[in-house]
Amino acid sequence: MSRTRRTASEAPHRPRAVENDSFENFLLDKQLELCAALERVDGSGKTFCTDRWSRGTASDGYGITRVLEGGDVFEKAAANVSVIRGTLTAERASAMSSRGRTEIDPRGGQPYEACALSLVFHPRSPMVPTFRADVRRFRVGGKSWYGGGADLTPYYLYDDDAREFHEKYERVCDVHDSGVTKGAVYDACKSWCDEYFYIPARKEHRGVGGIFFDDLEDGADSDARVRGVNDAESFTRAVANEWLDSYLPIVDRRRGEAYGEAQERWHHQRRGRYIEFNLLYDRGVRFGLDGGRIEAIMVSAPPRVRWDYDVQTLPGSEEHRLVETLRSPRAWTARTRSATA
Amino acid sequence: MSRTRRTASEAPHRPRAVENDSFENFLLDKQLELCAALERVDGSGKTFCTDRWSRGTASDGYGITRVLEGGDVFEKAAANVSVIRGTLTAERASAMSSRGRTEIDPRGGQPYEACALSLVFHPRSPMVPTFRADVRRFRVGGKSWYGGGADLTPYYLYDDDAREFHEKYERVCDVHDSGVTKGAVYDACKSWCDEYFYIPARKEHRGVGGIFFDDLEDGADSDARVRGVNDAESFTRAVANEWLDSYLPIVDRRRGEAYGEAQERWHHQRRGRYIEFNLLYDRGVRFGLDGGRIEAIMVSAPPRVRWDYDVQTLPGSEEHRLVETLRSPRAWTARTRSATA
Repeated sequence: MSRTRRTASEAPHRPRAVENDSFENFLLDKQLELCAALERVDGSGKTFCTDRWSRGTASDGYGITRVLEGGDVFEKAAANVSVIRGTLTAERASAMSSRGRTEIDPRGGQPYEACALSLVFHPRSPMVPTFRADVRRFRVGGKSWYGGGADLTPYYLYDDDAREFHEKYERVCDVHDSGVTKGAVYDACKSWCDEYFYIPARKEHRGVGGIFFDDLEDGADSDARVRGVNDAESFTRAVANEWLDSYLPIVDRRRGEAYGEAQERWHHQRRGRYIEFNLLYDRGVRFGLDGGRIEAIMVSAPPRVRWDYDVQTLPGSEEHRLVETLRSPRAWTARTRSATA
Repeated sequence: MSRTRRTASEAPHRPRAVENDSFENFLLDKQLELCAALERVDGSGKTFCTDRWSRGTASDGYGITRVLEGGDVFEKAAANVSVIRGTLTAERASAMSSRGRTEIDPRGGQPYEACALSLVFHPRSPMVPTFRADVRRFRVGGKSWYGGGADLTPYYLYDDDAREFHEKYERVCDVHDSGVTKGAVYDACKSWCDEYFYIPARKEHRGVGGIFFDDLEDGADSDARVRGVNDAESFTRAVANEWLDSYLPIVDRRRGEAYGEAQERWHHQRRGRYIEFNLLYDRGVRFGLDGGRIEAIMVSAPPRVRWDYDVQTLPGSEEHRLVETLRSPRAWTARTRSATA
């Protein structure tokens, strides 16, 4: 594994291999756009550093890790692009094939490519939620599958923020939903998100969710968990195009809220849950550790974290209300609330 | 799961079931002794709280979690007793049987009991190492197997501390070693410890090790990893009896060392490795999460932790020397150093 670190002002060079791949270019452009936007919002003058690394030879893949640390609004913000090329092992091929990907030979041996842009923004203030998002494409034998999502982890819950966030992604889903059942794409992605970001040992969800999808392919696929998306790549791009607009207004509203030491302590304790989820349960982390560059994985960790013994919340407190909400995911959007009312 | 929390001054009641089990009594007595000693050494007036919990009915087991937080010397110190009774699943029985425990029916269904005392002491000062230790017994069908150990995780490496620590456990091993090869018990337990507390993704060992053993039974067992211990229970008790004497002199020597913000930052960054090991790799943590009480597991987490991106150490610095040592375990005792010289 080789690495070059650039100073913040140098843009990462575009790898040669990308020239003809518009999705990979989309990821690289989106990474630049997000980092530039975050630097502006942060306003501290701190910038994203850029670490470019490659895996074996250039044809095995590369990554671009970008991190801003110690900002005024963002204590740590990271955006990674990674492109991994290799040959499917029998074990992995068999698992994928069993999930209905008939193009995959369960005996392994086919070349694959996985590319992704993933990001985590950890604000300094406990009043501003953490934002995590990714989009990814997996390719084998000329066929592509897409995945991605966006979710919000508040430390103090503002219902309006969660509602607005979910409604924005519901709109994106609806626009790309060609199915006859209204809202089916959003409903499937929302419940998948709740299910994925769950900490069984705590009986808590990590945050108030958002959307999550995987294995998405074009056209009708009656076995898929998310059905009705006609153009998987367009939908995936649209999700990524929503990120800044779904998150920055919340940052803007909450960054000025006052807080004290008690709120900060709670914030750092709750960040411990973030770590517990990532290290105990996250499939992406486990996949990434096998792939090799741990710093590109652990860059998603919140910067300051605490573990105090058996923290209890007082009934009636805001901390208690948050935990109650994390125990039983809610319907957030107007449509889904009226459906469950 | 039911719990009662006691104020610090109340001793935990002894469970009825323990009356005739001298090893279980040993664990409970040792827990009291350790906590009392730690409170004296800490000297802040902070005491261990006591949480007693049971699992289903009393016959399913119980635990006693004791924690001191926010002390002067110990930022967080925990000592847990747990006793778990149940019926072996086929999966677990088959794994155990395949490790040479012929008393175990690989089809499962036998009743078992696992009891353990485990502890982690996290000092406030980066100059004082973290101490982790446990002893445990597993019983099926009238047969007992023992496990345990003790290991040291320094943040700044004092070679003398690591040497003295290892030599003390080497002596304990030698006293219980009936084999013809001098030092074989220590050598086996030392290398097992190095192997167990390893973080593959970091290519680092968690600390400077100590000893670790498992599946230990009485008498000659030519398949066992640790051979030559005549009386497994006596050896296990002797290891636990060494804990305070192996650790407190180090605390005493290092607690007065000066340090500043940079050392504290390094301390908290390194504590991140402690968490990574525990959540990504520790078998005990995974077993404990299945068993149920996450706070009794996560009580071992260091209190304040940081993750900064891609921390590098300067060649020639003390931080660099520590990391180099964690990458290639050393021979610490006089005998083993002369053997490898």
